[in-house]
Amino acid sequence: MSSRPAPPGPAYRRLSVAQRREQLILTAQRLFARNVPEDVSLDDVARAAGVSRPLVYRYFPGGKQQLYEAALQHAADDLRDCFAVPPAGPLSERLASGVDRYLAFVDEHAEGFTALLKGGSVVETSRTSAIVDGVRRAAAQQVLIHLEVEQPGRRLGMTLRTWITAVEAASLIWLDEDRQPPVEELRDWLVEQLLLQITVTALQDGETARVLLRAAELEPVGGRVDSLIERLRMMMPLVSPRPSA
Amino acid sequence: MSSRPAPPGPAYRRLSVAQRREQLILTAQRLFARNVPEDVSLDDVARAAGVSRPLVYRYFPGGKQQLYEAALQHAADDLRDCFAVPPAGPLSERLASGVDRYLAFVDEHAEGFTALLKGGSVVETSRTSAIVDGVRRAAAQQVLIHLEVEQPGRRLGMTLRTWITAVEAASLIWLDEDRQPPVEELRDWLVEQLLLQITVTALQDGETARVLLRAAELEPVGGRVDSLIERLRMMMPLVSPRPSA
Repeated sequence: MSSRPAPPGPAYRRLSVAQRREQLILTAQRLFARNVPEDVSLDDVARAAGVSRPLVYRYFPGGKQQLYEAALQHAADDLRDCFAVPPAGPLSERLASGVDRYLAFVDEHAEGFTALLKGGSVVETSRTSAIVDGVRRAAAQQVLIHLEVEQPGRRLGMTLRTWITAVEAASLIWLDEDRQPPVEELRDWLVEQLLLQITVTALQDGETARVLLRAAELEPVGGRVDSLIERLRMMMPLVSPRPSA
Repeated sequence: MSSRPAPPGPAYRRLSVAQRREQLILTAQRLFARNVPEDVSLDDVARAAGVSRPLVYRYFPGGKQQLYEAALQHAADDLRDCFAVPPAGPLSERLASGVDRYLAFVDEHAEGFTALLKGGSVVETSRTSAIVDGVRRAAAQQVLIHLEVEQPGRRLGMTLRTWITAVEAASLIWLDEDRQPPVEELRDWLVEQLLLQITVTALQDGETARVLLRAAELEPVGGRVDSLIERLRMMMPLVSPRPSA
């Protein structure tokens, strides 16, 4: 390694402090998304950003760990926005849009997403865990906004949180299995899982039942919920212990 | 700390090597179940087992970490047995028995279970993660036995694995919320979640549909599936976009 400062790379431009910081974070986010953290060095980030290593250190004196956390926080903010779809139209379509955006993020950030959620990475700390937990809470919060619930009861809260865990687990399996089933099929499956999970909770819990009935009013004939109910109606006589009429 | 060997405690008995090892593991398992790993020392284990600290070291030269892993493996074997209910009777009842046993385990091992699954504990290593993953795989395998499936297709496999993740997440939330809802309600909810998750997958996947129809044949009138279908039948017209007939 030479001690001379690296010459400005091809992408070198005069940027303000805020712009440079943003550029370094975005570069790091891209590298951490497509590689496990162990395989990304500060030199890689400097090279990809077309700047010198000392410059990266000037912005991130904590080195790789600090840059990783900044990139993770940036990715977390993106992820948090996934479920912030416009609060208009049927609930099932809003959920489908949210899950679509989430799965596009997972697809794009496959390596980093897997390394982060499988745990055991050297860059994992209580701070990175807190960032991930923050995304989970924000996702649940977004779904609650679509359900028009400010403070969920225990049962509805548990339902949403377990669904979000299930979405994460299914995403990891999906990446692991070469992105099978096709993303639209996975999306529909995850949306229908949530709709029926809310329904199962509604069978036990009055608050959840009221939320479900209110959300159902916006569902159109021929929409996702209508289609789900139709298919369930056809399935039921086949699995019902009573002979169908 | 004195360098003299601790006198034999009240529980001291002459045990064979295998018996002593088992006694130490069971003692450690009990302590690790009810405390976070950080709060359990080798002295605590020695004291609770009524033996000297050097004796514990003779059996576990790797000290606390080795003892923790042995206790975890022992707990994992117990947990693995939860879903090994007799393969007779309706699927829904077998699942309910399995979930009952699982939740009793969670209840009994609350502190250790939470520390283990929340991660970030000092005793967490790739070996402990492998033990936990082994339990998840074994649980999925047990459910497959009840479904009479040897090698599941991708979709059924994903369904079971995401359900097991959801069961874990719901258990952690349940402990966190002072064991609310009541355990029977949580059990019924988890069983109905799986039944409907399999159903949702069956709507997309032929193999899962065949497995579901075969399992349904064993369900009695007035049983869990019958009750679930009845309640869904009553709910459906309320959420259906079509006016009910």
